[in-house]
Amino acid sequence: MSQESQFLAALRSLAGHPAARGLADDAAVLALGGTNLVITHDMLVEGVHFLPGDPPGDIAWKLLAVNLSDLAAKGARPVGVLMGYSLRGEPAWDAAFVAGLEQALSAFDAPLLGGDTVSIPAQAPRTLALTALGTADGPVPSRSGARPGDQLWVSGTVGDAGAGLRILLGELQGGAALVERYRTPTPQLEAGHRLAPLVGAMMDVSDGLLIDAARLGGASGAAVEIDLGDVPLSDAFLSALGDDPPARLAAATAGDDYELLFAGSPEQEGTILALSQELGLPFTRIGSFAEGDGLTLLDRGVPLPLPERLGWEHGLSPVESAPGAP
Amino acid sequence: MSQESQFLAALRSLAGHPAARGLADDAAVLALGGTNLVITHDMLVEGVHFLPGDPPGDIAWKLLAVNLSDLAAKGARPVGVLMGYSLRGEPAWDAAFVAGLEQALSAFDAPLLGGDTVSIPAQAPRTLALTALGTADGPVPSRSGARPGDQLWVSGTVGDAGAGLRILLGELQGGAALVERYRTPTPQLEAGHRLAPLVGAMMDVSDGLLIDAARLGGASGAAVEIDLGDVPLSDAFLSALGDDPPARLAAATAGDDYELLFAGSPEQEGTILALSQELGLPFTRIGSFAEGDGLTLLDRGVPLPLPERLGWEHGLSPVESAPGAP
Repeated sequence: MSQESQFLAALRSLAGHPAARGLADDAAVLALGGTNLVITHDMLVEGVHFLPGDPPGDIAWKLLAVNLSDLAAKGARPVGVLMGYSLRGEPAWDAAFVAGLEQALSAFDAPLLGGDTVSIPAQAPRTLALTALGTADGPVPSRSGARPGDQLWVSGTVGDAGAGLRILLGELQGGAALVERYRTPTPQLEAGHRLAPLVGAMMDVSDGLLIDAARLGGASGAAVEIDLGDVPLSDAFLSALGDDPPARLAAATAGDDYELLFAGSPEQEGTILALSQELGLPFTRIGSFAEGDGLTLLDRGVPLPLPERLGWEHGLSPVESAPGAP
Repeated sequence: MSQESQFLAALRSLAGHPAARGLADDAAVLALGGTNLVITHDMLVEGVHFLPGDPPGDIAWKLLAVNLSDLAAKGARPVGVLMGYSLRGEPAWDAAFVAGLEQALSAFDAPLLGGDTVSIPAQAPRTLALTALGTADGPVPSRSGARPGDQLWVSGTVGDAGAGLRILLGELQGGAALVERYRTPTPQLEAGHRLAPLVGAMMDVSDGLLIDAARLGGASGAAVEIDLGDVPLSDAFLSALGDDPPARLAAATAGDDYELLFAGSPEQEGTILALSQELGLPFTRIGSFAEGDGLTLLDRGVPLPLPERLGWEHGLSPVESAPGAP
């Protein structure tokens, strides 16, 4: 067990309140005054979750987006955010950050309600924290509700942000759309809200499709099978990386997608596809749940060995080591 | 205007939602489902808000206490917390932190609901974030409700934590009780809850009695007068620093007290004193509000010039640069 896993296990032993959902969900869910208050808190650290050269305004957007993505996965609508900000004596950087924050708050209709600023040494990495609050009047999907026989779905396209990061690191050539997916992800708030009553389980894909799907199966006590050939890829991704199994595996393990991963019974398939049409957002069937446990990988029907790394696990991820858990 | 003040001014322009209280209160207050949800977020940075050698368990306690103190100032009862934690590969330190966190969560009946862990470089300062949620069914005092003629009160004793910090820095000799006040402050949750319906305005004293009193007066649009001779000092403080005006001024500008500072009309004086008796917690009248603005200082009735520094302002404080504001 890694040091971080040990730490998380120790914290879980303190988190017996039902609203904590065992620190194993995307967010805490607290029944309050006839509604469900959904609360999430994620931090971004310079050099870990964003690159020192990323535009400050984009970092503000990402800070908001990664937290709102957790609300989206629980079907919640944002009611406000609190921000923790580290000052390092760089007024131009700070001003550009605030300008981006204003755009993002407005785009997602999430008012700034409070927070804290702290001064940090000039050589310390910038550390940004955000707490997002949302409400969900309807059911709040967990990660544990998938049942054998359910279909596994993902929204949008996968792998774009990972490709964008590789472009920024000089490891890959590709279009600006991929970099944009890395720097300014879109939380699927409307889709999450509309899907919540239709799904058995839902989470956002932040650490990589394979690792997050394994978590969904693990929490639900079911086996998961994914066919890489069905994983939805964007044209920009296909141009940059092609369509062979290594490219598909890269997409499925890259992380930072902020798409929705959800389980639906076969009876819901028509409703889910109709919603996809209505929203103009692809929902793609990429696999299924079965009795048992573990993750099985196929490539167009042919079994494929699991890669050594399913995604990001130990706080080294572009974002979030253990979603929803401290 | 300092860089931090400019940054805060820019953020305030984004925080038009009434729940944000203009980023000028100890916490956000959101009407939700028939109750008031009170939310605060404060960060602690190693070397800024705590000393690298402080016991990890005490740092956990302080992280919780400084946030719960904001809830106390709004009369709220804790419903839970979310924590942001930075891992630096020090399992023994982390384990001691979790043990202290468990004690503190239990002492304040504040369940851990979620959060995030991030890995940071080994040489980066530890950065800890906490969001505390509380509810207040009754009135939620602001900082702006003091009226000319009101009395200014403070709970407990002031200056102990500041003296404790000086002991830890080797600048002062004194008892362990002072160090304890610095490392493991007590949020006045019960007192805050009981005082909320009695007061015109209330906040916690985190940056220093004088600066926080000036903020209370400023927010209320009233002048404040404080008599240093009335500021309550502990026996431990008096033993270490004596009872002359410089010692009293040190107490009133030191910060990290986490006592309650509140305004009450003269008609409430008897009720406030009876509550003090009932709780076994001193409430001391230290001044009054009048028409006008600004802070006036007396020492046993004799006017005293204001010191150059009223408390901590620019993120250099033992805790919290601008309480309640990002």
